Amino acid sequence: MSKCQVCHGKDGLAKLPDAPNIAGQKEAYLVKALIAFKAGERKNEQMTVVVKGLSDEDIANVAAYYSSIKISVQVPP
Amino acid sequence: MSKCQVCHGKDGLAKLPDAPNIAGQKEAYLVKALIAFKAGERKNEQMTVVVKGLSDEDIANVAAYYSSIKISVQVPP
Repeated sequence: MSKCQVCHGKDGLAKLPDAPNIAGQKEAYLVKALIAFKAGERKNEQMTVVVKGLSDEDIANVAAYYSSIKISVQVPP
Repeated sequence: MSKCQVCHGKDGLAKLPDAPNIAGQKEAYLVKALIAFKAGERKNEQMTVVVKGLSDEDIANVAAYYSSIKISVQVPP
């Protein structure tokens, strides 16, 4: 999890310009994205390195954590 | 914009299981993702169809709108 927090923060709000926010992101989407990065179907320099060491259980835990962050939204008028 | 709302909602919260939330997502990340889908670098059945008709201006407008949605987060204890 600590590797994720460098770019995505503990709160799931991106800490680097290129990183996306993943706070409250859909769990299935996060799992699918991590698997795609691991399989090389999705390409990103940082993510390709980070996911290398992740087991299926790690992927499930990371996705569960970030999707559990509650988000509320304010749509512009 | 209406094409985006079918899956991502006006509020940026996914309306379909496979779609990600994009409320308050980083503008540069959204532009990069849309360009990657348009170029076929990123693959997704729905997105590949949707982005076909988008101009660079459309992409900028969509990214500006969804990134302008304010989000607040509650990190689990």
